Amino acid sequence: MSPTTGSTLITNIGQLVTVDPTEPDRPTRAHAALVIDDGFVAWHGHAADAPAADARIDADGAAVIPGFVDSHSHLVFGGDRVDEFEARMAGRAYTAGGIRTTVAATREATDEALRTRLVHLVAQARAQGTTTLEIKSGYGLTVADEQRALRLAREVTAETTFLGAHVVPADFADDRDAYVDLVCGSMLEACSPHARWVDVFIDSGAFTVDEARRILLAGRDAGLGLRVHAGQLAADGGVALAVELDAASVDHCTFLTDDDVALLAGSGTVATLLPLVEFATRQPFPDARRLIDAGVAVAIATDCNPGSNFSSSMPLAIALAVRELGMTPLEALRAATIGGARALRRDDVGHLGVGARGDAVILDAPDYRYLAYRPGVPLVRTVVAGGIVTSRTVRGE
Amino acid sequence: MSPTTGSTLITNIGQLVTVDPTEPDRPTRAHAALVIDDGFVAWHGHAADAPAADARIDADGAAVIPGFVDSHSHLVFGGDRVDEFEARMAGRAYTAGGIRTTVAATREATDEALRTRLVHLVAQARAQGTTTLEIKSGYGLTVADEQRALRLAREVTAETTFLGAHVVPADFADDRDAYVDLVCGSMLEACSPHARWVDVFIDSGAFTVDEARRILLAGRDAGLGLRVHAGQLAADGGVALAVELDAASVDHCTFLTDDDVALLAGSGTVATLLPLVEFATRQPFPDARRLIDAGVAVAIATDCNPGSNFSSSMPLAIALAVRELGMTPLEALRAATIGGARALRRDDVGHLGVGARGDAVILDAPDYRYLAYRPGVPLVRTVVAGGIVTSRTVRGE
Repeated sequence: MSPTTGSTLITNIGQLVTVDPTEPDRPTRAHAALVIDDGFVAWHGHAADAPAADARIDADGAAVIPGFVDSHSHLVFGGDRVDEFEARMAGRAYTAGGIRTTVAATREATDEALRTRLVHLVAQARAQGTTTLEIKSGYGLTVADEQRALRLAREVTAETTFLGAHVVPADFADDRDAYVDLVCGSMLEACSPHARWVDVFIDSGAFTVDEARRILLAGRDAGLGLRVHAGQLAADGGVALAVELDAASVDHCTFLTDDDVALLAGSGTVATLLPLVEFATRQPFPDARRLIDAGVAVAIATDCNPGSNFSSSMPLAIALAVRELGMTPLEALRAATIGGARALRRDDVGHLGVGARGDAVILDAPDYRYLAYRPGVPLVRTVVAGGIVTSRTVRGE
Repeated sequence: MSPTTGSTLITNIGQLVTVDPTEPDRPTRAHAALVIDDGFVAWHGHAADAPAADARIDADGAAVIPGFVDSHSHLVFGGDRVDEFEARMAGRAYTAGGIRTTVAATREATDEALRTRLVHLVAQARAQGTTTLEIKSGYGLTVADEQRALRLAREVTAETTFLGAHVVPADFADDRDAYVDLVCGSMLEACSPHARWVDVFIDSGAFTVDEARRILLAGRDAGLGLRVHAGQLAADGGVALAVELDAASVDHCTFLTDDDVALLAGSGTVATLLPLVEFATRQPFPDARRLIDAGVAVAIATDCNPGSNFSSSMPLAIALAVRELGMTPLEALRAATIGGARALRRDDVGHLGVGARGDAVILDAPDYRYLAYRPGVPLVRTVVAGGIVTSRTVRGE
């Protein structure tokens, strides 16, 4: 959605958290106001000093934070896997094989069915405060189906990722080299006009490091930025590859060697943690504390997908980051906003510094820490994206 | 809220889960409809067979479930304890002592401040699907403050619980017998007209089993039903007392002996599990599987309170019950609906059998299992209470 013209004043903010990278020592400001002009943050400061504006939103003493940046999701797919979820909760182990179930359902679905589901999922994410959302392909795994997924995703976000290398499809099980050739060749050619990024799932059930290198280099040659799934179920060498190729982000990072951590700390690659996946699969959680203490840039994202986690809740991801990953509430909020922005190499979102996009969330809470203190409670009251109020919750009649 | 006159048809229900105790073998029904007449369920069955009604709600293929029965909450209080929460997440242990912080803030608060907070919390709970809500006193701990809390709670629910025996207040620290005398005497006398239940927190930081017996028997003599907090941090003998006195419910049940389990299985006392507390305090979760397999009646509730858990999310409690307590999604839904009703000795709520109150939730999901499959996502689309649509979420502008 494009920013709008005209100015909006959000005032009576009990606690403003700008996550402004130019003011890192000032995490919160009381009695604050924020002005969004022509879709971008024009001013923030003490409410009593606020300039006039065309429109006015009263935050009623609540906390205001930047809109969340969810830098990892898979929202173009058919069917669901709730039966698999129930079976897994009853004790069956998760493997990447289940992705093929969704591939079959996605190929069968019409454009309109995929679009209806996608638009609904994006609206749900928006209503939970997500104002920047990356969406991957990866459930088509043919030239036409991958292209279709990216074309649909591009209708709702600029942050589209070509993930033809999600898993080797069943029809290539006996000739995985031919599938990698396809991904690097005609599939990439068809998809790159609709994508900003290329991504590879490095996993014993998906792609090797060498296969991933081929695919990422081909994507880079086609003008795409690089992302990697690695370390979800084992330390698999994917982090070293991501750093070697200066990928914007390496996602999961649940299993890391000491060398991986050191490589990340010396790199421009963000470690994106996806704690909703560990919650949904009962895997061990990643250790954010280890990464932060080593100086690694960390993001939190949802990985919303029908298999390993179907939650799109950035607030619950924050609550899990505080409970399970060793993060403070402020570190978790930063990881879910400016951390995600860095994982997308964006400096215009994920914070409310002057000049940033006017993407703000008014909470139904006086303090941003309530996102972790009150898990599960829908605390996103009003979402402002590019200065436009795009979602809010009302009660009663 | 009283049921209303007139009939309402909820139709185009993709999956109806009545939790009807007369139809235990039929957990879900597809292509269904439900009629609520004069505030009570008058009919349910196949949508094509539905009778006419005065008003019509289209469920648009979604799942419909009974409204949640949250049989354990503490919503009358001043202040918050977000600083304590943040400290605990950073590694400080939880003890019952923090309750006294809230007691001080509650005593200082005006009636209007307490009421505003309470009404807001109840509205949030309702928006998350809770249509029957028990609320305890316990942050006053003087005759006047306990009575005030119950008077306020009674404005929003019939299920009010006198919990003067929440903790021994600081001013009685050197003479706990005098406090127990007060609770059993003038405090009970002042409070019982505003309460349906009496409850005692049995814990090393609160009351002993013998003290609890005295208080519960006094409450019973005053015409109140009995509830007990026990087994939160240790197997403390509270379960045996609850069963001995035929309490409606014993709540927490995290630490139980084999004898406790056997006693519960042979009793009319419900074991109410509060997994959001363990989530918020990083304590071990209770073992619902052990209880269910032994034949114990189980409920799930929130225990929403400013200290040991400030979430009012019955959906997240269900998700935790499935992930952590060994329950199936259907067992968890039953525990959160008819289980809670049994813990309140109510047969008119917690299910959608003919004759029950017309308390139904239309989900933003095709299957009730999505409550566990999509944790944190606000999946409660429309709440119908006594046949009246009292809350719904809208998006966009």
